[in-house]
Amino acid sequence: MRRAMAAAEVGDNVYGTDPTVRALEERAAALLGMPAALWTPTGTMANLIALTVHLERGDRFLAPRDAHVLANELGSAAWLAGGMPEALEHDAGPGRPTPSALSSAIGPRNAPYYALRTTLLCLENTHNAAGGAVTPPHEHARLLATAKQAGLTVHLDGARIWNAAVALGLPPAALTVGVDSVSACFSKGLGAPAGSVLAGGEDLVDQARRVRHLLGGGMRQVGVLAAAGLAGLDHLGELERDHRKARRLATGLSEFGWEVTEPQTNIVLADVADVNVALDTLAAAGVHALPMAGKVRFVLHRDLSDDDIDEALLRIESRLTNGGSQ
Amino acid sequence: MRRAMAAAEVGDNVYGTDPTVRALEERAAALLGMPAALWTPTGTMANLIALTVHLERGDRFLAPRDAHVLANELGSAAWLAGGMPEALEHDAGPGRPTPSALSSAIGPRNAPYYALRTTLLCLENTHNAAGGAVTPPHEHARLLATAKQAGLTVHLDGARIWNAAVALGLPPAALTVGVDSVSACFSKGLGAPAGSVLAGGEDLVDQARRVRHLLGGGMRQVGVLAAAGLAGLDHLGELERDHRKARRLATGLSEFGWEVTEPQTNIVLADVADVNVALDTLAAAGVHALPMAGKVRFVLHRDLSDDDIDEALLRIESRLTNGGSQ
Amino acid sequence: MRRAMAAAEVGDNVYGTDPTVRALEERAAALLGMPAALWTPTGTMANLIALTVHLERGDRFLAPRDAHVLANELGSAAWLAGGMPEALEHDAGPGRPTPSALSSAIGPRNAPYYALRTTLLCLENTHNAAGGAVTPPHEHARLLATAKQAGLTVHLDGARIWNAAVALGLPPAALTVGVDSVSACFSKGLGAPAGSVLAGGEDLVDQARRVRHLLGGGMRQVGVLAAAGLAGLDHLGELERDHRKARRLATGLSEFGWEVTEPQTNIVLADVADVNVALDTLAAAGVHALPMAGKVRFVLHRDLSDDDIDEALLRIESRLTNGGSQ
Amino acid sequence: MRRAMAAAEVGDNVYGTDPTVRALEERAAALLGMPAALWTPTGTMANLIALTVHLERGDRFLAPRDAHVLANELGSAAWLAGGMPEALEHDAGPGRPTPSALSSAIGPRNAPYYALRTTLLCLENTHNAAGGAVTPPHEHARLLATAKQAGLTVHLDGARIWNAAVALGLPPAALTVGVDSVSACFSKGLGAPAGSVLAGGEDLVDQARRVRHLLGGGMRQVGVLAAAGLAGLDHLGELERDHRKARRLATGLSEFGWEVTEPQTNIVLADVADVNVALDTLAAAGVHALPMAGKVRFVLHRDLSDDDIDEALLRIESRLTNGGSQ
Repeated sequence: MRRAMAAAEVGDNVYGTDPTVRALEERAAALLGMPAALWTPTGTMANLIALTVHLERGDRFLAPRDAHVLANELGSAAWLAGGMPEALEHDAGPGRPTPSALSSAIGPRNAPYYALRTTLLCLENTHNAAGGAVTPPHEHARLLATAKQAGLTVHLDGARIWNAAVALGLPPAALTVGVDSVSACFSKGLGAPAGSVLAGGEDLVDQARRVRHLLGGGMRQVGVLAAAGLAGLDHLGELERDHRKARRLATGLSEFGWEVTEPQTNIVLADVADVNVALDTLAAAGVHALPMAGKVRFVLHRDLSDDDIDEALLRIESRLTNGGSQ
Repeated sequence: MRRAMAAAEVGDNVYGTDPTVRALEERAAALLGMPAALWTPTGTMANLIALTVHLERGDRFLAPRDAHVLANELGSAAWLAGGMPEALEHDAGPGRPTPSALSSAIGPRNAPYYALRTTLLCLENTHNAAGGAVTPPHEHARLLATAKQAGLTVHLDGARIWNAAVALGLPPAALTVGVDSVSACFSKGLGAPAGSVLAGGEDLVDQARRVRHLLGGGMRQVGVLAAAGLAGLDHLGELERDHRKARRLATGLSEFGWEVTEPQTNIVLADVADVNVALDTLAAAGVHALPMAGKVRFVLHRDLSDDDIDEALLRIESRLTNGGSQ
Repeated sequence: MRRAMAAAEVGDNVYGTDPTVRALEERAAALLGMPAALWTPTGTMANLIALTVHLERGDRFLAPRDAHVLANELGSAAWLAGGMPEALEHDAGPGRPTPSALSSAIGPRNAPYYALRTTLLCLENTHNAAGGAVTPPHEHARLLATAKQAGLTVHLDGARIWNAAVALGLPPAALTVGVDSVSACFSKGLGAPAGSVLAGGEDLVDQARRVRHLLGGGMRQVGVLAAAGLAGLDHLGELERDHRKARRLATGLSEFGWEVTEPQTNIVLADVADVNVALDTLAAAGVHALPMAGKVRFVLHRDLSDDDIDEALLRIESRLTNGGSQ
Repeated sequence: MRRAMAAAEVGDNVYGTDPTVRALEERAAALLGMPAALWTPTGTMANLIALTVHLERGDRFLAPRDAHVLANELGSAAWLAGGMPEALEHDAGPGRPTPSALSSAIGPRNAPYYALRTTLLCLENTHNAAGGAVTPPHEHARLLATAKQAGLTVHLDGARIWNAAVALGLPPAALTVGVDSVSACFSKGLGAPAGSVLAGGEDLVDQARRVRHLLGGGMRQVGVLAAAGLAGLDHLGELERDHRKARRLATGLSEFGWEVTEPQTNIVLADVADVNVALDTLAAAGVHALPMAGKVRFVLHRDLSDDDIDEALLRIESRLTNGGSQ
């Protein structure tokens, strides 16, 4: 990947003349089943641009509880996009609301002008804070139908859509059916140092390009980063290895008595008695994890081997035995 | 009240020289136990100004579910004040969250800079959508303590604080202890055609005055409206009559088999099978009510007599008997 | 006017059921030659709503230098409407830019997406800070043509449009030809204590109604104020008296050696050596005036008589003779 | 530079653990004479963050006419930072306002709350649209003194500060004396593909870090880009070569009768009869230039040799001779 970056042909991305960025945008659009795509510095910016384009001032939008747009973007949805967020509970399973909960949250149609109006649904697949949980296509389709019937626009936060696609054995485009926009990241599982896309119709991408510039996201010769994104896409299928490593880690942690849900992708979420104590134990063992939604989150990636997992488990076991605790 | 309005001495309120407005501001500040107060055209603007002054861009704020700032101000909290709202469930009773739910929603202190931060609690007393429900002082105090220990600012939406005070037999100032700002309305129960205040410290009111002007709320010779507010305050104690009428109405509706909670103030909330059908029945009976939070809301006020209540009940009964339904 | 207010029939203006407000909106729309109108608490809010509806985030708008939307609305055009202001010099006369200056400020068409785009022209007739200066219809028409050819929307700040119409001997609707929206005030020359309208197409007014509510401008029973507006409109023609009084005052001030432009309407602007010194002199004489755009502004209104003007001049002369100065 | 990028050690910049980014931030802060610095994806974002931190809603800010923050950032100053811009004319020379013009634009102190308040001055050194014009330290000092006496905050857009420093033979820190924040770019003359910094006090940088995240600028492993910035800073002194090439180009263009000001740094600005015709001629000659502020702008950089300049001049001459025109 570093070689690809070092050799990348670049141009001025603001003027649309960086060939590597354009190649990545076209490839991502095709993979995601959308007419066009726009490179963005971060997934947060891709989501923020989508919300800004989709929402009018004061509109309400819905997202599964603990979605990245609700919990991890510092309130830009309100400050910048002007939207009122409302969380949908995960009543269909981890990260997944039911269509009936969605319908009930949308509220009555033909509301008067002085009533808060709901205009956007943001889905997230896989859902990060729910432990990399996958929404399968048939559930996605039912949620979309409910949203569309109520006149809502739908954005999909697909930061980890590659993992969802690999886990389901489907092309990514099968997971974006019916959405108006989708974001996806080349960092995270794909291993690029930075860079995301927002994909959608030509009009949306034209508007998004202007908003990207307004936000200060109009980077110039970013072909060097786009090259890393292209290299990451060459190895999409290998994400399955991360999922296998996640299951290996989860099994090991369970054996220590930790409450761990069977991982669906590359994230392992442990529900421990005291998150801070557990993080201290892990830090002492040299194992990197983060707190998320009241749990401890482990992320598996391409630079970790099976042996690394085993080594991590040994070290954790050793700390737990010697007086550490979860 | 119309006479008081017609005789009101006025000046230019933007320059702070309308004597009637100043008199109302001073009287309201004293009643609410705050150093200063600012007249505003609406309660929505009073709340909006408070949120705008209290919140920095992207901050999260908490409010009981269905609070006016969440549900009835069209998303201005997000668009204008830049805040991310989060609803607290009514787990302590109608309109009232528990301190532990509040504490849990606030989340950990010393969160890193990239984590959403929660900086404001908005209470509402009485809570409109919860049927004019009162939060008693000891619960208020515990919520305040929890919020303050976590470093939060507290705003009280006291649009109906006069009703809460009368229901509790306490001066309004007893219900604002510890809050950083409080809004209150002269319309609604007090009967003025329009006008509210935002009360708080001198600094807050100075900032609020500028924000009011920014929002286009710098009305000039509004002594004519302030006079109505003063007249309304002269009759605070009479609000008890509205509460009694509310109980009379609630009793009557219960006898038709409607599910009605015992009203605490001047609002009656009926939980009916189908809100639209019930509203049609009421409309046919010439009884004015509105949908709210999935129920039917009746509001009692000074211009309704006991006989009006009885007449309304008779008409509703007649419609229900003749094929209408709830 | 107070009688009209005391007798006003009212309703709930948020629900559109205040008959007096509706009557005023319809009459104002007709007078202004527009399909619909919306009552607003202030002229500042009427302008702010117009800018909010017309501008998309980051759009540039143009207005004559020292226009109210540039200088007197505290930056709400930027903060709330998200627009970048640019002042047009008064190269055609007081308050009036030339079409060529306008054309040059608009810049080239077909600018790329990363270039600031100009989408709105705000005119002001009469122009307050230019001393109540009138833009005659033929100049208005040429500015409109230039703006429209460049694809701009046009808003007219007509806070004092009644004065402009009277000064020109034309119906107000003759001064709004081609604009997309116009604001007008019932306070100021017409003498109502407060209240303005924003007039335009049905769609614009529907959007404006929502924005008014978002801004906290959804006042309830404001028929009492609307009644004053209707009373003011009954006496439109009498504004000519204010213009005559303005000329009388200007003549008198000139005789003291003050540099005073011949007033076109009810505003007298004196260009003095030191504004603060002049204001002190006036204050000592008990004559109320305000600083504006580096000059001293006097406003004439219905509650001043010719004798009041003479008295004011005598007092000023006396102060100037006794050691005061301009 | 590509080698440095390929070898860069990286970490997670959001968590502050990317060693290459930290090294660049520390080096840039030291060079710019500020306590701290924050890497940003673009110079536009660095400026935008500065404005967002410095301005409160609706504040007015001043900048020399055609400054990047006024003309090239798509109105983000208004939409995002909420500021009302006002241009200062270049009455002291290209890109440079006089202190008296600044003082007059700031207006009176102790303005009442309902008056627009001016709180920020944005300088730009070198001034891009004025042809890379340099503000010398003594003029900078006088502007700063005027601004500070009036209580203003000062931000310096130093996207091209490296060129200004080299042209003056001074360290960059000599050009930031007294400012509250300064932005600087590693792209442009220094040749990095992307990346800028915002430097200032520790508090400002802490706030800036949060705003960067809010804007979606929290890129992760950007050590690969920071490495390019560090490599660029190793060759600061070589910018003098670009300035020499600019003078060579300017001399050549003058000989064709083009009106070209003597370049002060690496930008050549030609004032031609018809910008579009001139750009067509240049395009036909294979010479890349852009329109700016009604002129044609050429930028010289490290990848152009003296021979390239001569070649460009030959080609332009040939096109002009063969029927092309300026």
